Amino acid sequence: MKHQIEARTPAGRRLAALAEEHAHDFAQRAAEHDREGSFPHENIEALKRNGFIGAPAPAELGGMGVLSVHDLMVAINRLGRGCASTAIAVNMHFDGLWAQTRNWQDARRRSESEAEAVAGRLRAVVQAKLVVCGSVTEAGTTIVAPLTEARRDPSRDGWIVNGRKIFGTLSPAADALGVSVRLIDGDAAPQLGMASIPKATPGLKVMDNWDALGMRGSGSHDVLFEDCFVDASLMQSMGPWGSWPPSLLATLGTGSACIAGAFLGIAESAREMTLESLRTRRKAPSGTLLAERPAIQHRVGELEIALETARGILSRACARADDFYADHFPSDTRSEQIHALMRELIAAKHVVTHEALRAVDTCLTLSGGAGYLSGHALSRLYRDVRAGPFMQPFSPIETFEYLGRTALGLDPDAHEGSLPKAKEG
Amino acid sequence: MKHQIEARTPAGRRLAALAEEHAHDFAQRAAEHDREGSFPHENIEALKRNGFIGAPAPAELGGMGVLSVHDLMVAINRLGRGCASTAIAVNMHFDGLWAQTRNWQDARRRSESEAEAVAGRLRAVVQAKLVVCGSVTEAGTTIVAPLTEARRDPSRDGWIVNGRKIFGTLSPAADALGVSVRLIDGDAAPQLGMASIPKATPGLKVMDNWDALGMRGSGSHDVLFEDCFVDASLMQSMGPWGSWPPSLLATLGTGSACIAGAFLGIAESAREMTLESLRTRRKAPSGTLLAERPAIQHRVGELEIALETARGILSRACARADDFYADHFPSDTRSEQIHALMRELIAAKHVVTHEALRAVDTCLTLSGGAGYLSGHALSRLYRDVRAGPFMQPFSPIETFEYLGRTALGLDPDAHEGSLPKAKEG
Amino acid sequence: MKHQIEARTPAGRRLAALAEEHAHDFAQRAAEHDREGSFPHENIEALKRNGFIGAPAPAELGGMGVLSVHDLMVAINRLGRGCASTAIAVNMHFDGLWAQTRNWQDARRRSESEAEAVAGRLRAVVQAKLVVCGSVTEAGTTIVAPLTEARRDPSRDGWIVNGRKIFGTLSPAADALGVSVRLIDGDAAPQLGMASIPKATPGLKVMDNWDALGMRGSGSHDVLFEDCFVDASLMQSMGPWGSWPPSLLATLGTGSACIAGAFLGIAESAREMTLESLRTRRKAPSGTLLAERPAIQHRVGELEIALETARGILSRACARADDFYADHFPSDTRSEQIHALMRELIAAKHVVTHEALRAVDTCLTLSGGAGYLSGHALSRLYRDVRAGPFMQPFSPIETFEYLGRTALGLDPDAHEGSLPKAKEG
Amino acid sequence: MKHQIEARTPAGRRLAALAEEHAHDFAQRAAEHDREGSFPHENIEALKRNGFIGAPAPAELGGMGVLSVHDLMVAINRLGRGCASTAIAVNMHFDGLWAQTRNWQDARRRSESEAEAVAGRLRAVVQAKLVVCGSVTEAGTTIVAPLTEARRDPSRDGWIVNGRKIFGTLSPAADALGVSVRLIDGDAAPQLGMASIPKATPGLKVMDNWDALGMRGSGSHDVLFEDCFVDASLMQSMGPWGSWPPSLLATLGTGSACIAGAFLGIAESAREMTLESLRTRRKAPSGTLLAERPAIQHRVGELEIALETARGILSRACARADDFYADHFPSDTRSEQIHALMRELIAAKHVVTHEALRAVDTCLTLSGGAGYLSGHALSRLYRDVRAGPFMQPFSPIETFEYLGRTALGLDPDAHEGSLPKAKEG
Repeated sequence: MKHQIEARTPAGRRLAALAEEHAHDFAQRAAEHDREGSFPHENIEALKRNGFIGAPAPAELGGMGVLSVHDLMVAINRLGRGCASTAIAVNMHFDGLWAQTRNWQDARRRSESEAEAVAGRLRAVVQAKLVVCGSVTEAGTTIVAPLTEARRDPSRDGWIVNGRKIFGTLSPAADALGVSVRLIDGDAAPQLGMASIPKATPGLKVMDNWDALGMRGSGSHDVLFEDCFVDASLMQSMGPWGSWPPSLLATLGTGSACIAGAFLGIAESAREMTLESLRTRRKAPSGTLLAERPAIQHRVGELEIALETARGILSRACARADDFYADHFPSDTRSEQIHALMRELIAAKHVVTHEALRAVDTCLTLSGGAGYLSGHALSRLYRDVRAGPFMQPFSPIETFEYLGRTALGLDPDAHEGSLPKAKEG
Repeated sequence: MKHQIEARTPAGRRLAALAEEHAHDFAQRAAEHDREGSFPHENIEALKRNGFIGAPAPAELGGMGVLSVHDLMVAINRLGRGCASTAIAVNMHFDGLWAQTRNWQDARRRSESEAEAVAGRLRAVVQAKLVVCGSVTEAGTTIVAPLTEARRDPSRDGWIVNGRKIFGTLSPAADALGVSVRLIDGDAAPQLGMASIPKATPGLKVMDNWDALGMRGSGSHDVLFEDCFVDASLMQSMGPWGSWPPSLLATLGTGSACIAGAFLGIAESAREMTLESLRTRRKAPSGTLLAERPAIQHRVGELEIALETARGILSRACARADDFYADHFPSDTRSEQIHALMRELIAAKHVVTHEALRAVDTCLTLSGGAGYLSGHALSRLYRDVRAGPFMQPFSPIETFEYLGRTALGLDPDAHEGSLPKAKEG
Repeated sequence: MKHQIEARTPAGRRLAALAEEHAHDFAQRAAEHDREGSFPHENIEALKRNGFIGAPAPAELGGMGVLSVHDLMVAINRLGRGCASTAIAVNMHFDGLWAQTRNWQDARRRSESEAEAVAGRLRAVVQAKLVVCGSVTEAGTTIVAPLTEARRDPSRDGWIVNGRKIFGTLSPAADALGVSVRLIDGDAAPQLGMASIPKATPGLKVMDNWDALGMRGSGSHDVLFEDCFVDASLMQSMGPWGSWPPSLLATLGTGSACIAGAFLGIAESAREMTLESLRTRRKAPSGTLLAERPAIQHRVGELEIALETARGILSRACARADDFYADHFPSDTRSEQIHALMRELIAAKHVVTHEALRAVDTCLTLSGGAGYLSGHALSRLYRDVRAGPFMQPFSPIETFEYLGRTALGLDPDAHEGSLPKAKEG
Repeated sequence: MKHQIEARTPAGRRLAALAEEHAHDFAQRAAEHDREGSFPHENIEALKRNGFIGAPAPAELGGMGVLSVHDLMVAINRLGRGCASTAIAVNMHFDGLWAQTRNWQDARRRSESEAEAVAGRLRAVVQAKLVVCGSVTEAGTTIVAPLTEARRDPSRDGWIVNGRKIFGTLSPAADALGVSVRLIDGDAAPQLGMASIPKATPGLKVMDNWDALGMRGSGSHDVLFEDCFVDASLMQSMGPWGSWPPSLLATLGTGSACIAGAFLGIAESAREMTLESLRTRRKAPSGTLLAERPAIQHRVGELEIALETARGILSRACARADDFYADHFPSDTRSEQIHALMRELIAAKHVVTHEALRAVDTCLTLSGGAGYLSGHALSRLYRDVRAGPFMQPFSPIETFEYLGRTALGLDPDAHEGSLPKAKEG
């Protein structure tokens, strides 16, 4: 596709090429999964077969070694052109794997033994082609103030988890879930915890209830936790409940730029089918090609500008993330450095998802009504693309708070909407 | 509803009050008709029972005597809050009835006998509570260049109609259809014809195939005409095929402003449910009401501005239409007068349908993801409201051509997209 | 001008006709006053000669009896087409006169004697053709929290005023100023006061320092008050310092809708000169008229939509204000009624000033560079029109706070930006 | 400045650092040149002293060897922060020098002797620190259909040039001008010619009449040519009059992306002064810092997004231009390759200049009225930044034509506005 964002590393180019092949295949079934609201298990299986699913893991540990945020985004972009539900589901898994790989890189700088501990976990995931998805969203609260509770169970050296998550994208195919919790340990102030919970854990139930406007194949079900026991080794404390741990913000913010690639992919697909149609359809009474009509050309110009805008901000932000991560590691990154980077990634996610919306809307306009019919792919893309702004970590409303406050040198956590009240602290 | 557009005439106020009652009832079943793609026959039946369906017919002839375009728009607006599919279907019927009533007023100024001829037809429709819908849209051409052909059949003093219409809103409940055709009469240049075809006519088939992104209860099926015989008395020649007869433009342009009321109604409903939610929901960790959050208030401000913008331009354009129609009648209206009026109505339809889109989109953002779920009414309103810009007579693309050309003193028909090529003329 | 907003009352139509004549005359000198930054005293003199300056005063008291907000806005709109600086200056004076007339109407409902007191003041202003301007803006605070102080001077039954106002539009021609102050009276909590201060008062100095991007003829100088004595009879206490008295909000909010008419007028002028140029200029190499170029037509379509949008919301809001004021008077109006009305007027001012900006910007684009030259009127209109959003009572930033909070049922005064801190209360 | 676009090559970084120093100096006098409409000769002299003016020339020939389009743009961006008039003037000169350097690179690939011919001219320009500016704009026509005529003068082996150019940015400091002409040579079809005309040529007159809304220090005077003799060696024929030579489009399109950097620079300056103010100013009655006000933060978020959007599309387009130019040279580049690249550069110029407009407008809003005063730098930046969309080669109107047509696979030259009529061909 002309003008598309190209991968920058050899490993990334290999991944992108694979993604294009898969996308072509996934596209065959995207409409059906949308209609039925079914999860594309066969797509995930296909991505397991050739190791795609392990892309962000180090080559040394059996992965494809695509550590470039930019190139992971490109791969998600290509998948998004074929089946956006699959693309955002895969991104869920990539997020966690990439973060683990970063931890491994970090550990290696300190000691072999520390590195080996992380490597062991990574190798296990990659070799068994395990699928892991984050599960951090709940109704009525923010990501860092989960109401799902993990209570210390001293008798078994672990925690008992109770609660309900929503938007559990990829959960149908997951082998384990990364779950944010409110840690309750005696009288201590509640902490934010992150648990890795195997899906087979008794009491964990994927509700099979995802039924939404779009992204209907993403399996974004509710996930219920009823007295799930989690071993202490699988629970990590991230700091005070209610404020962002920099590392978590970094992981989710980076992931949000990658996932924006999927929405760009939706828009690119919409553009391709729309232009193809305009170049071949004629309209009575003049009988001229639609493409020859100046008013059509004007809208196409708008469409091109939307796409170029999205590509520019997205590729720049991701390339700058790569530059940053090349010499900053989780253990030695200061909070303000994270925010400086996040500002660009969060802005990119915002702009890309909105330009993608605008582009698909323009395509619908250019379709002249045909795209409004359920049988036309544009009607699906129009529903899918609307999910973009809702993607974590920040809603459009939070995005402006975050960008505005950090630009002004204020603590982004301290605004009215996200801060626990003093008395609750 | 505070700030809503209020009817300006006593008859209009009666109609609006009725519409509000019906809307309340229709709202109960709107989600179900959406899900099933079923036509709300019971709604049309209810509107027949109390004479609502005859609103634009003169009181003297059994109607409710609501001739004010402004007040018909208000009634459609109120219906749109309850069930937008029903609202646009009803508008289809109102369009034709209003035009007939205008013809009757016009005829009365000339002679009793002429008036009585029109009155007879009107009385028949009103008393039998007949439902008539326009059927003027086809794929691959403009409204005034139909490819559906009516060939003169001299043997039976009539015409044989063949073709296929799309977007036949209200067709499931229609007793007759107003169908645009290309009149072929020997070697004469083709004319634009308007046929009134009873639904029971052999060869006419409503295809029951409407399946779209939104407005799923509107019954906008394809309508097929296979060798349908139409009596000469039911066929009207409107001038050269391929250019706008001023009277048809006036009817459809006026109707488009009324139908814009339905889209405003969708946005108003979305606003009500959204504000109700913001006023009552709290979010952890701060536990403050969503309404108290400044970033939320900002978006609500944007929402209010979108609605006020829509109300302003719509009520003004419709009131000015009423002023114009008070002393201009079809038979003595010059083309440039029609265009001067249409410019305001067409601009209003454009602005209102786009502000309504923007408003519902903002509500979805304010819902924080909840509105993206199929079970939430916003996800339906988001799909319904996208139909607005497609409403006839002009697509967004044609709207700019029309407004631009008429502002510059050019013939609006003469642009590249709509003109028959010279050689075809 | 086609599509323009027309006055609705006979008195309003007379005023609008006068305004059009004046505008034609004022237009001759607008560029010169802009270049020199000089105040158009001759314009104000001309408006005095025929009584225009007394338009909002009751006919019974020597005015023109134009009490319709809608029609005052129309008059300001017409003036704005000729000289926007004059238009906003005149509006300053109209604001206060209209409020006084409202007080007189109100008083008449209570008692003859009370009415006569107000009538006396009104008659004095109208007969002497006095010009009064508001002076309520200061740097670093809101309108209702003036830092200009009035300290009780018990020795002379009056007040000593010290402070500095900015944006004193019309001050060069004013005979008296309506000045908002912080009343300091012993230990009492500070009150918001409104003083009527004759310009000849010792210590009052109009600084003659207005030099701005646009509206350069508006005489919006700083006004300095150094130990100005104000007689107790000329000082009115309006309630607690720092919150909006409903009556002041009503006056300024209503005035802001009228002043929006001036900005619409700027845009209308820009449109006229732009279309005239497009209809007559040709461009090589094709030699076609610019008007014939589809890409030009598209932009003209956008221009038309901007203007129609502005006219719609503005005429509706003003007409609804007239309806409201017809049976609500200052002394019996509840605060929430004021807010319900203000919401529409404030939204209208916001939309109109921004659509006017957009329209003039589009004209500049359509001028193809010619309009960027200082000698071209568009370059002045582009600078003038940017003043719109700054017009009191609410900046764009405050507008969203106000609309959002009132929509959500919250106290509009209570947001972070405008509230005195609790400890100050 | 955080988040700014950084140069990518060592030579580019040196240039950017110099540009920052100069910008700091230029900023001291920018307001004065604006007020007086004077050309900043001292700035150009300063850029001559350290060789900055020869930046795009090869190091081998005495230049700074900054051939990266991206890095030239960065340098213009930095200059733009200090004095936008100087920045766009310098860009005028860079354009031509860069194109010459490209020709030299191209020639080197073919033969030493050919390269030496170009090198000689380049060396002459660089060593003498000559300033050359393009002069290709005229009223009433497009760039490629100049009405300025060059008639063959066989008697002197040269051409006689007559005509008038407008927007001659940098002309006061130019030693020579690159002038587009209509070549008239007997009966041959007119060709587009490009003449290099020394400023000292008899009959050439820089009119000293630049007086515009903004960019008042850019010296964009009219330039008059009255019977100017141009030696044949200084005239180049570029192909048919009225259509774009790919090489000229490439030069101007590339230059337009560089010049967009200046407008980004304006916006970045506006942002810095605005945020500084918000971080330090407090507003009564609450006394909170403006920065602490959520409604302010929201607007700042919008500002950040505008800037990030501009940076993303601009840096990407320029980096891709560098990639393209690395292995494509003027003599072996196909027209469709040029268009593929231009599409990105032209889109970038459009988006950047409009986002810069939006950003400065937002800063004005955030200034709360202070920025509207002539003494405030924002009022100048607001005027300067409006020049952006007018920058050649395409106006906003032509931009949509170009992007739309090329996206649809149509000849961008063939639209109604730019094509000579068939009969003229």
